[in-house]
Amino acid sequence: MGQGRTRGPYARTPARRAEIVRAARDSFAEHGYAKASLRDIAERAGITHAGLLHHFRNKDELLAEVLADRDSEEWRQGLEEVGDPEQLGPYLGKLIRHHQRAPELIRLWIELAAAASRPDHPAHTYFVERYERSRAQFTDGFPDEESRGRLREGVSPQSAALLFHAVLSGLQLQWILDQDLDIVEPLGDFTRLLFEGREA
Amino acid sequence: MGQGRTRGPYARTPARRAEIVRAARDSFAEHGYAKASLRDIAERAGITHAGLLHHFRNKDELLAEVLADRDSEEWRQGLEEVGDPEQLGPYLGKLIRHHQRAPELIRLWIELAAAASRPDHPAHTYFVERYERSRAQFTDGFPDEESRGRLREGVSPQSAALLFHAVLSGLQLQWILDQDLDIVEPLGDFTRLLFEGREA
Repeated sequence: MGQGRTRGPYARTPARRAEIVRAARDSFAEHGYAKASLRDIAERAGITHAGLLHHFRNKDELLAEVLADRDSEEWRQGLEEVGDPEQLGPYLGKLIRHHQRAPELIRLWIELAAAASRPDHPAHTYFVERYERSRAQFTDGFPDEESRGRLREGVSPQSAALLFHAVLSGLQLQWILDQDLDIVEPLGDFTRLLFEGREA
Repeated sequence: MGQGRTRGPYARTPARRAEIVRAARDSFAEHGYAKASLRDIAERAGITHAGLLHHFRNKDELLAEVLADRDSEEWRQGLEEVGDPEQLGPYLGKLIRHHQRAPELIRLWIELAAAASRPDHPAHTYFVERYERSRAQFTDGFPDEESRGRLREGVSPQSAALLFHAVLSGLQLQWILDQDLDIVEPLGDFTRLLFEGREA
């Protein structure tokens, strides 16, 4: 993804690419993916249409980059803010509210993840590895018997990781269909279900 | 959806429509939606291509019908088999294993649900109402204080319904990306998390 040329006045600098990705994200969020145009994205990024094409070949490539970018940003923040299961609930509430500011990006993420489950899809490896890595990060939070004891009895870290990611995407899928739903409270309920110790 | 003509030798009988929908489901499951052709579907249903077009205008219309059909069949079975929260776990395990025989249908369901979240999508109302109805069916299972007491303390029937549907779709999304994952066990864990009474 993102194979561009790197010569002349269109040198492929990370800063320029980042500007284009931000412009694309804003354009997708505002107009929807189908209606967003490369011309609008180029204009927002303050470059020419031809200039943009030196960095990204098409809208598909930009979409993959926008979602990967959003993903790695959340990843970085998550690692920073969540040192303990108790911090997970508040972090997720914040994350969901942030996502809700751009429903189209939630929609695109789910559509692309499902489409990418086809082994011949260009983003297949990205999505498979993304979920593997996220689940592994979750299970890494339970390295020993004592930490596993914070999970409800009988729930393995692997099972908890699967459920956790299922709840995140599944709640957002319901929310994009009905944006009056409160999905932050159920998310809090879920983390309590998962973590309120065996002593409960 | 499914506006066909009803005259001549192509009378729109429910039986004939049902045959076509079954043929479409099998064709989508085997070839994938993109590669399935109306000609293949017509052949499986034992009618001509022209005959098929008297019932369904295009592949999109057939897809909506295949998914709605699968949905109402599960709905009927669910009502029949699940009279009590304890029966939910086994029923869901069976349901998921049944879905896993046709990964392409899981994929299409998720893609279509996300696409249909756009208010101008032809299946928008269907999906919004489908989720509302499913959540309402779930909460209807907790009509009084005593039945609500079977849910973990502090979890409302509404919140449980949202989580329940989130887990179902979210686990299946992860599974179509990595079909070696065991998602039946986490599903069982989840129903236990939700229902093991306050006394636990």
